[in-house]
Amino acid sequence: MTNFNAKLIKIKTGEKSIILNETDADELMLHIHDRVSLKKDLQQIIAIVDVSDSMVKSGEIGIYEDLLPFFPVSDGDTIELSVTTPPPSVAFIRKKMHGGTLTKEELHRIVKDTVNHSLGELEIAAFLMAEHYVGMNMDEVEYLTRAIVETGRTIDFGETVVDKHSIGGVPGNKVTLLIVPIVAAAGLKIPKTSSRAITSPSGTADTMEVLAPVTFSLDELRRMLIEVGGYIVWGGSLNLAPADDIFIRVEHPLSIDPKAQMLASIMAKKLSVGISTMVLDIPTGKGAKVEDFDTARALGNDFIELGRRLGIKVSCGITYGNQPVGHTVGPALEAREALQALMGGGPNSLIEKSTSLAGMLLEMNGVTPKGQGQAFAKELLRSGKAFKKMQEIIEKQGGNPDVKPDDIHVGKMRYVVPSPIDGYVSSISNSAINAIAKAAGAPICKGAGVMLHAKIGYAVKKGDPILEIFAETEQKLKNAQMIALQRSTFMIEGMLLEELPGF
Amino acid sequence: MTNFNAKLIKIKTGEKSIILNETDADELMLHIHDRVSLKKDLQQIIAIVDVSDSMVKSGEIGIYEDLLPFFPVSDGDTIELSVTTPPPSVAFIRKKMHGGTLTKEELHRIVKDTVNHSLGELEIAAFLMAEHYVGMNMDEVEYLTRAIVETGRTIDFGETVVDKHSIGGVPGNKVTLLIVPIVAAAGLKIPKTSSRAITSPSGTADTMEVLAPVTFSLDELRRMLIEVGGYIVWGGSLNLAPADDIFIRVEHPLSIDPKAQMLASIMAKKLSVGISTMVLDIPTGKGAKVEDFDTARALGNDFIELGRRLGIKVSCGITYGNQPVGHTVGPALEAREALQALMGGGPNSLIEKSTSLAGMLLEMNGVTPKGQGQAFAKELLRSGKAFKKMQEIIEKQGGNPDVKPDDIHVGKMRYVVPSPIDGYVSSISNSAINAIAKAAGAPICKGAGVMLHAKIGYAVKKGDPILEIFAETEQKLKNAQMIALQRSTFMIEGMLLEELPGF
Repeated sequence: MTNFNAKLIKIKTGEKSIILNETDADELMLHIHDRVSLKKDLQQIIAIVDVSDSMVKSGEIGIYEDLLPFFPVSDGDTIELSVTTPPPSVAFIRKKMHGGTLTKEELHRIVKDTVNHSLGELEIAAFLMAEHYVGMNMDEVEYLTRAIVETGRTIDFGETVVDKHSIGGVPGNKVTLLIVPIVAAAGLKIPKTSSRAITSPSGTADTMEVLAPVTFSLDELRRMLIEVGGYIVWGGSLNLAPADDIFIRVEHPLSIDPKAQMLASIMAKKLSVGISTMVLDIPTGKGAKVEDFDTARALGNDFIELGRRLGIKVSCGITYGNQPVGHTVGPALEAREALQALMGGGPNSLIEKSTSLAGMLLEMNGVTPKGQGQAFAKELLRSGKAFKKMQEIIEKQGGNPDVKPDDIHVGKMRYVVPSPIDGYVSSISNSAINAIAKAAGAPICKGAGVMLHAKIGYAVKKGDPILEIFAETEQKLKNAQMIALQRSTFMIEGMLLEELPGF
Repeated sequence: MTNFNAKLIKIKTGEKSIILNETDADELMLHIHDRVSLKKDLQQIIAIVDVSDSMVKSGEIGIYEDLLPFFPVSDGDTIELSVTTPPPSVAFIRKKMHGGTLTKEELHRIVKDTVNHSLGELEIAAFLMAEHYVGMNMDEVEYLTRAIVETGRTIDFGETVVDKHSIGGVPGNKVTLLIVPIVAAAGLKIPKTSSRAITSPSGTADTMEVLAPVTFSLDELRRMLIEVGGYIVWGGSLNLAPADDIFIRVEHPLSIDPKAQMLASIMAKKLSVGISTMVLDIPTGKGAKVEDFDTARALGNDFIELGRRLGIKVSCGITYGNQPVGHTVGPALEAREALQALMGGGPNSLIEKSTSLAGMLLEMNGVTPKGQGQAFAKELLRSGKAFKKMQEIIEKQGGNPDVKPDDIHVGKMRYVVPSPIDGYVSSISNSAINAIAKAAGAPICKGAGVMLHAKIGYAVKKGDPILEIFAETEQKLKNAQMIALQRSTFMIEGMLLEELPGF
């Protein structure tokens, strides 16, 4: 046991960590990432060691901000420090690394130690990488899901609530803006929380934000659901599944998305708000997250089985993911297209996809008999009832319910990409479309994005517009143009793909 | 591009990172671990984003100390910030994660970006975990080794130099303190750098430090080698393979030690000091790092093949690793035992192991014909030539060359564990021995450790001393006693292992 003087350091590290002078750390044989036990009067805590030769002097212990809620001390306080061992969850992570199967208690402890910052980021990374390489069985996925729910907040709406979720990966997927008002217009309650874009040009929350605010407290959400039957908000500030937020933060630089973690992440958020039935959209095709039907079916069955264990009735819709949904990508352009579809216009692909998924929810909840859900969804759309419901939702969320598609501001700077030859569009690259829209400024610039003037199967003539880029600044337009030029965004049958020189 | 005011933050993070206010990060859609490009006048650098809501105000950018050598700025300077993508090495890491084979250039870039802090710890963790689960072929291991050497310092002694290395895992392995003086007494040059204990009760550098200082500059080492022909020093401060130090720091909390990384780590340090021949000690047995002969042989062949590619002649000695080497574990106790062996006493197991490995080096370098190395090594030991050489080494390193074994201070507090029954010792637990010695205070308390009064095959009577614990404080002695009581350190034939109650 050694005594140190506390020095408060106003930085959050996301871990329960302290900082020692290099000399003191060497003396105590402590390395970065080792653990120590700190004591002051009756308070005691385990923390992770960081080392500096300048921030704290020998004899001082730097206390990061993350520690204070659990271990309130003041500058100059005497802290007793002793070397200690990692929490048991570290041994459970090693068990998974060595191919073991984790018990309910072990997974709960790992998730709990993630949320209360007792595990360091590298240890959480080891857990996620082990999941990625070793995998988990369905028992483990269920325990993981429940642990994520139990370590977060939950909300009980006191009613039967339904949901729609897409695993993502296809650009322009603004179907939520149609499905929520259709389903709510049919009398179901659909409390839809969405994410903002992380790596894509537009998340559903970004798109909805063009029409109305999306950040609310749990109390506001409860009131909105009872009064209107649905909402489309950003889920990020609700702290429903804090473990999941940390897992996602660590996964991002590792660029992994283990299947077990994806299942648990999605279903935990549903369980925490008491969803009873849910339809899952699995866009499948080249350039989507899932590229073939076998994988899509296997994934869908995993969701259905996990739902069964959690008491959530899940149906899956395997949808066409070879090209963007509808004709637009980018928050404002997508909001405008969704509004057009609700008002009786809009592209057929968007209406077909939205009503088929909405129809599944209607059938699952007995609103229509089996086989008649989509027709009823289309009728709600055609009759304007869905649009009226959307106006109520927009108004309740604090937006202008009378907004017209043309009122929505889209990027002033435009560039039209012409077809290089006569022919039929044979494929469109989702990743190129995403890259162009992001380079144009989406989702930060709400008005930035792309509009597709041609889709797969369209006949185009040389010089016809196939793609239009929207941006707010000349520089961003140029960046997007450059990417459109470099990447093979559209494949048109008969196009010369490569020229071999030398003759 | 956005402008920020620099605010210097005197903390080292081990990454090139900066800190933004949460509001600014949200505005720019930046997440923790994302990368930004910073510009000031003609200076430009890529850094990793950290986020705080208290350390910097909106409009400020916190510049951590690690960044300053590459990007010298002052408090209040205007910094242009723009969002950027990760370095190409991140894509190479992903390639390995997906099972790919890395090229020489790709591995060089990963190692370079590790050393210059362009990769974050989570990205380095992803690389190491991928190595652990996916593996590497021998080409990749060779490129990795060369990259570690090329990104560090090298030393050219201008002479043929030899080395001995143990992959570790067996307690009490003080053979280096005999091998170095034997080999140097035979006229070979042996520049031995050792590590301090990380998870064991004593590293060779800890043990040598009982006899003489072990921290020197490269210039001092060069002079010592020319004048005496050998030394035993701590390698940690030489910065020979900085990439390896970072890899080890990240591996430690992940508790992985990928084979490719172990091969590269050991051989890079040999290549960087120009070793021409080396003997590798692979302790094999229950509780050692390698538990069976097939694994030991495969590992040995990998070292031999990697050595061949690097121009280092490697021979491997698979040695008995079922129990501690000699009778002592702990820095002072081991230094005393090694000195006794050099002066004509000492346990047979220590002398046999040391002279057989030393003999291999003598044969490899033509000092003796094949088959006569060990006999010659024993003769150097018996004649006192090795002891005289050790005295020269101790004196050159600044210790007292006339130190006697009894002069070496060992822990004052003692506790003797008696045999519980009559019988033969059938096994000794390496991990229990390590745990007891560490609990007693080794390696921080140099005098702490254990002495084995019995080894495998010894006949003991009930009440005979089998283990003696040495500590410097009553508390540490108690801690060690407790562990000795809890763990089955010694198995004695005829011992009652378990009693089934209920009759």
